[in-house]
Amino acid sequence: MVSEFSAEEIGRLRAETPGCKNVVHFNYAGSALMPQPVIDVTIDHITLEGEIGGYEAADLAEARVEAVYVSVARLLNAKSTEIAVVENATRAWDMAFYSIPFQRGDRILTSVSEYASNVISFLQIAERGVSVEVVPNDEHGQLSVTALKELIDDRVRLIAVSHMPTNGGLVQPAADIGKVAKDAGILYLLDACQTAGQMPLDVEAIGCDMLSVTARKYLRGPRGVGFLYVREDKIESLTPPMLDLHAALWVARDRYEIRGDARRFENWESSIAGKLGMGRAVDYALDLGLDRIWATLSARASSLRDMLGAIPGVTIRDLGAVKGGIVTFTIDGKTTNEINAALAERKINTTSSSIYSTRFDMENREQTQFARASAHYLTTETECALLAETVAEIALTRS
Amino acid sequence: MVSEFSAEEIGRLRAETPGCKNVVHFNYAGSALMPQPVIDVTIDHITLEGEIGGYEAADLAEARVEAVYVSVARLLNAKSTEIAVVENATRAWDMAFYSIPFQRGDRILTSVSEYASNVISFLQIAERGVSVEVVPNDEHGQLSVTALKELIDDRVRLIAVSHMPTNGGLVQPAADIGKVAKDAGILYLLDACQTAGQMPLDVEAIGCDMLSVTARKYLRGPRGVGFLYVREDKIESLTPPMLDLHAALWVARDRYEIRGDARRFENWESSIAGKLGMGRAVDYALDLGLDRIWATLSARASSLRDMLGAIPGVTIRDLGAVKGGIVTFTIDGKTTNEINAALAERKINTTSSSIYSTRFDMENREQTQFARASAHYLTTETECALLAETVAEIALTRS
Repeated sequence: MVSEFSAEEIGRLRAETPGCKNVVHFNYAGSALMPQPVIDVTIDHITLEGEIGGYEAADLAEARVEAVYVSVARLLNAKSTEIAVVENATRAWDMAFYSIPFQRGDRILTSVSEYASNVISFLQIAERGVSVEVVPNDEHGQLSVTALKELIDDRVRLIAVSHMPTNGGLVQPAADIGKVAKDAGILYLLDACQTAGQMPLDVEAIGCDMLSVTARKYLRGPRGVGFLYVREDKIESLTPPMLDLHAALWVARDRYEIRGDARRFENWESSIAGKLGMGRAVDYALDLGLDRIWATLSARASSLRDMLGAIPGVTIRDLGAVKGGIVTFTIDGKTTNEINAALAERKINTTSSSIYSTRFDMENREQTQFARASAHYLTTETECALLAETVAEIALTRS
Repeated sequence: MVSEFSAEEIGRLRAETPGCKNVVHFNYAGSALMPQPVIDVTIDHITLEGEIGGYEAADLAEARVEAVYVSVARLLNAKSTEIAVVENATRAWDMAFYSIPFQRGDRILTSVSEYASNVISFLQIAERGVSVEVVPNDEHGQLSVTALKELIDDRVRLIAVSHMPTNGGLVQPAADIGKVAKDAGILYLLDACQTAGQMPLDVEAIGCDMLSVTARKYLRGPRGVGFLYVREDKIESLTPPMLDLHAALWVARDRYEIRGDARRFENWESSIAGKLGMGRAVDYALDLGLDRIWATLSARASSLRDMLGAIPGVTIRDLGAVKGGIVTFTIDGKTTNEINAALAERKINTTSSSIYSTRFDMENREQTQFARASAHYLTTETECALLAETVAEIALTRS
């Protein structure tokens, strides 16, 4: 049995998170509050760049930058040669997706809760004669693995699923999907930008071929950096949609060679400070233990759902048999703008999620917008109670 | 007549550059020494993110982020709707280049000194039946505008040139190339990653349709950020190779709409701190005046070429009728590794440029590597003399 963090442990972790003094943060799925060690590593490197030059600082940090790949690999139970560090989860996902050599007639299977950015990319490729098909949900509101199996044929080129949607705490059955993909020999791309840092992620257990992550969300890393995992035996079959002298070597006037490891999905220039900050954030999560992080934050989010759900006029909107840190809700007669603004007045950070981000799901449910409060292991019962109390007041206010 | 900065002005500018106290920096074309105001803006935003959350800090900075586009537009004599802020010059260039709808039989014209990353991209597209042709140099070692004119026909789809190569101070005749491109109605992509921050850049005078820049070089901005300019009347004809919910809107289950301004070449997530830092760097350059910056740094680089060129065994490798801040050289019997390392012992930052970066040019000249010292307006005659003195010692040392 994995234990939650004790109140004392959470107190210590909050004490080394400067934001906890200033705000009641329920926006960890947007951009988390960074712990001081992550802030320090990031800022220290920028300071060093100012002191001795950007390239010279990178030379000094070379071993520590390499260690970032090792840490990320450890987070995923992968090899460091399977990791690319890129600008963010979108570009990580893009570099994987747009590398796939789709042919006319290919099919892409995705989930009802898929994120707009991914669907827009599907639709862009669909113009080449590829079909995009949405796997129906099961009774829990998660992707139906049974339905997925029934859709499989030899034209299915890709299964691409968001592990947790932007509009709710739903955790998709990633490993069950992985079994289907593996049995059928189909490429499987998992968008784990919301789940990395929330729960243990094991690419062997999940069975995905590609997995994309951003640093700024549940990993508590800096903005402007993320990573991509690509399974070793799939790398050579994926030609990046863009190449530079880092991804490839210009070996003759009319010839280049693409590198063999996952860094073919990177480009030469990057924010070294951001990379180091992300590495520190990954180490921080690994030190705490992803199983304990998950036990703590899922309990807190569950408690928050109970508190909010008990308020008259409030409806919880999270789907799924298993739910994580994201809590979405609506208040009868209130817009999300009104809700977010009223909460912000009390320094409670929340955000919202609209139909433009998850159209398939929102249309199916005849919804246009949800308020979103995302909890982490730092979140206290007191914070949950304060949020619930304020939401109750908003629900009672006339618009 | 534009005046150089006085010794007093340079003293003041060096005083607000922390790196000037620690190193003799001749690597401005790699990554410059940031001025304190740029460091402060960047670090202050990261600190704010830690204090109140990443999204919340971005909300507070919204007007200042918008102002970055205005500053960049001012730098280029462009409109702010023609600017995309992206991760770096490579991705800026990529988003322009890979957006071009090349057809089998199209021709790309480029320069002898073209950068490897760009050529690798040309060669990737060449696999679709596009030809890549190198315009010969004129007697100055710069792109021959006469030869360019002779190569023009209605199959030429793109003229793509690096304004200043990575392996020398050569300033290509960008505006003369622009006239040819404009007369023939051909797309013109200028890679200005080395020249932005060195000299005045006016997209109207140059006549380019697309221009890519990084912050970390002569602009003295942070790493991991850059920008792309795309001429207003060309934007709609260029479909980004990757799309997300920032570049496009998901308007119906099977339909998206790409935005009309240059931000279609961006993606949603970015380092806000990096953006703000770049904006501050652009403002800093604009306040100093690009004409005075250019007058100062080109005089200093010229002086450095004279000093180095006078040393027995040293050969200056810069080409061009007009030369900027990059100075490349070789020392008989010495590798660039030996040169860079010996200079680094005296805290003199230099780098090198190899055949893998500019193969067309290096093969033509039967060279494999140059040592590279890049000067800026901060560079003093004393620094130049120290570099020259050390190079003279290296030249005399037995390998």
